[in-house]
Amino acid sequence: MIQNDSIVALATPSGAGAIAVIRISGEDAIAIGQSVFRSKKNKDLREQKSHTLHLGNIVDNQKTLDEVLVSVFKGPNSYTGENTIEISCHGSTYIQQQIIQLLLRKGCRMANAGEFTLRAFLNGKLDLSQAEAVADLISSDNEASHQIAMQQMRGGFSNEIAKLREELLNFASLIELELDFAEEDVEFADRTQFHELLNRIEFVLKRLIDSFAVGNVIKNGIPVAIVGEPNVGKSTLLNALLNEERAIVSEIAGTTRDTIEDELVIGGIGFRFIDTAGIRETADVVESIGIKKTFEKIEQAQVVIFLFDGLKFQVSSFEFVSEIEQIKNKYPLKPLIIVVNKKDILSADEVSNITSKLENLNAKLLLISAKEKIGVDDLKNELLSFVNTGALRNNETIVTNTRHYDSLLKALDEIQKVKFGLETNLSSDLMALDIREALYQFGMITGQVTNDELLGNIFANFCIGK
Amino acid sequence: MIQNDSIVALATPSGAGAIAVIRISGEDAIAIGQSVFRSKKNKDLREQKSHTLHLGNIVDNQKTLDEVLVSVFKGPNSYTGENTIEISCHGSTYIQQQIIQLLLRKGCRMANAGEFTLRAFLNGKLDLSQAEAVADLISSDNEASHQIAMQQMRGGFSNEIAKLREELLNFASLIELELDFAEEDVEFADRTQFHELLNRIEFVLKRLIDSFAVGNVIKNGIPVAIVGEPNVGKSTLLNALLNEERAIVSEIAGTTRDTIEDELVIGGIGFRFIDTAGIRETADVVESIGIKKTFEKIEQAQVVIFLFDGLKFQVSSFEFVSEIEQIKNKYPLKPLIIVVNKKDILSADEVSNITSKLENLNAKLLLISAKEKIGVDDLKNELLSFVNTGALRNNETIVTNTRHYDSLLKALDEIQKVKFGLETNLSSDLMALDIREALYQFGMITGQVTNDELLGNIFANFCIGK
Repeated sequence: MIQNDSIVALATPSGAGAIAVIRISGEDAIAIGQSVFRSKKNKDLREQKSHTLHLGNIVDNQKTLDEVLVSVFKGPNSYTGENTIEISCHGSTYIQQQIIQLLLRKGCRMANAGEFTLRAFLNGKLDLSQAEAVADLISSDNEASHQIAMQQMRGGFSNEIAKLREELLNFASLIELELDFAEEDVEFADRTQFHELLNRIEFVLKRLIDSFAVGNVIKNGIPVAIVGEPNVGKSTLLNALLNEERAIVSEIAGTTRDTIEDELVIGGIGFRFIDTAGIRETADVVESIGIKKTFEKIEQAQVVIFLFDGLKFQVSSFEFVSEIEQIKNKYPLKPLIIVVNKKDILSADEVSNITSKLENLNAKLLLISAKEKIGVDDLKNELLSFVNTGALRNNETIVTNTRHYDSLLKALDEIQKVKFGLETNLSSDLMALDIREALYQFGMITGQVTNDELLGNIFANFCIGK
Repeated sequence: MIQNDSIVALATPSGAGAIAVIRISGEDAIAIGQSVFRSKKNKDLREQKSHTLHLGNIVDNQKTLDEVLVSVFKGPNSYTGENTIEISCHGSTYIQQQIIQLLLRKGCRMANAGEFTLRAFLNGKLDLSQAEAVADLISSDNEASHQIAMQQMRGGFSNEIAKLREELLNFASLIELELDFAEEDVEFADRTQFHELLNRIEFVLKRLIDSFAVGNVIKNGIPVAIVGEPNVGKSTLLNALLNEERAIVSEIAGTTRDTIEDELVIGGIGFRFIDTAGIRETADVVESIGIKKTFEKIEQAQVVIFLFDGLKFQVSSFEFVSEIEQIKNKYPLKPLIIVVNKKDILSADEVSNITSKLENLNAKLLLISAKEKIGVDDLKNELLSFVNTGALRNNETIVTNTRHYDSLLKALDEIQKVKFGLETNLSSDLMALDIREALYQFGMITGQVTNDELLGNIFANFCIGK
């Protein structure tokens, strides 16, 4: 992998803004920068200290392209570990393009997606799971996903793995040493200590693997299906939850034929609300397709909200109860919240009738008014109660990355094989093989073991300029 | 106008990117920055030199929001002339919002549109026309508008005005001095020299005023109307000129019922192509409205392209000639280019027939093939010939700003009054009034004379963060 060429990319979002930042990294970055820069004070960028800023013009021969500020970073004290300059120019797309084109003519090449961070990894500025956290951090859009990414970027996760790997490596070398003295039947590795270490590793791996269930939903948002007959106020409820008018509220029953998704952050956790067409029996073909889709969406949801109009309970209580039982029978383990709308215009009799008929359905029952925003906060709290936020609050390590999850599962599998081998007095040479496999999986997470294809896959998901 | 509070804004475009830059300016900017910053090397931002960069975390109490690079600029050596810091953070919208909200809690307030540049102006870092050029620079999207904005930002334009104002001010004080000695009938100001100065000022003002015709079209793009009967290949021509598929090319005659505008940069100059419905006589009501609109668009255009299908000349030559004559009669001074399409499938006879019948119509005649892109470059060159690019090439000052244009017109009016007064031996006291008025208009351009309303109007057009 060639690393010495200088790469250039726009680091700020494209589009109009006051300023834009163009980043160059590579051995010649500062020299290339100097070749297009005329300092206001006749300074030569190559002679400047690291971490300094310089005002001047970017010039293409005699033509001034822009007045800019140039930041100088000297390797290894830069993000990538290489010489780096950042040109802070005016935010016109035309200027950005002109400057980047000029730099390409001066010997830079366009950076690939994630190439700055890839170089940082290759130069040992951060390990692989930290590099991956950079991308997570940039795409984080709520407190929980931000917190997890920050923690991973600070190395909490990979430090833990690296430490366990170190201890395991220690035992591995002792056991491999035993192989050299196989005929003498000596044991350099204390089997009791080793068993204790394997138990510890197993415990940590299981905890990290378990955390993925939380981590994954936090990263992607917790899917919540809102089910109910048309015109019951699903869109109004969604709007009340969202505190703004995002879904179209319509008076025509059956408006919500397709599923609409909307995201909302509650207590720092992202939820994806999936508005469905309900499961009311109907002769309408389009509606029937909607019902099928509704079940598909319930399938994918973590939590289901069954919403109905309290005013209609008197005449439709049989249908409502039957629909709720349908959902409970089909998805017995899925948390269900029954939400009765229009509480503001229900009589005391109606309320007690609803409560008595529904309280034994093994589901949480909430009476609200989406329109008047009564009970909406109770619903938010109820939703939060389904999320295991304990790990988050305790600042525990949470795995959010599918690649890490896979490696952890494989590592656990290998560790359990080693443990079984130890308990059944497996020969050292076979045990050594399993240990190596576990070490390999650990290394895959932190990047101590890599290959080009893996790196390619990871960094292709980055934005260009990072 | 309070200037001492610290203002904060996102300086980079909103949206996803590798990094974002948050800018704070004001007396306490560095202290506020320090209050939320934990340097990796335990540095205190307040003790750092100007124009240095520092790696660290932005922290909200114990919570780390992001790992960032902070640039320190000490007033007056900053864009605004005040203490300034720029926080280069990860490009997540969530992080940007969190950091800005934290800074607001720490005593910053959100910057108004253009407030950083307003402060730069109020602190004497740039004059008003230079400040206005900053906004032009950010919105420039082609070479010509970029070049003009750069030149204005470097002060070329206002320097010239300021120098003339200085000379005029000199004479003004001499003439006002004469008023003090009115009874003695002395002349401190040499009338011949004064007359010479007024001529010089008049010459410069006229040149600047004339340049506005070029400057304005360069800034906004030169409008070119494409006129021709439906289905003649207007959209194909537009695409050939644009080198990409932007307008919808359709086989149905009369598709282009409404006017479509498209922009194209030719030789660094922006052109706005206005596709019209043509002026063919028709019974269709919608088409008739289209014809009315076509004439309106010709009215607004700087150049008109009359386009027709060469294959149809044999049968429709009478209509074509009549339509061309209609346009020539209605707009005798408007440059007209007759473009004959489908050259690739015309016989030599057809070509000579077209040429002989149209060459005397006092319009440029071009035979092209929009589909095969034959002659398209000739058309581009022909369009460029209508633009006075001489001033651009010679790097002359070009006025693009309507506000400046107005002030220049008023200043010229006053200067001509002064000149008339001088030639008709007007009394010094009356002449002094006219001179003051001219000085006022000059000052309005550079900002030596301002009022809050004027400043409000100018900076309201800026983006926030600049």
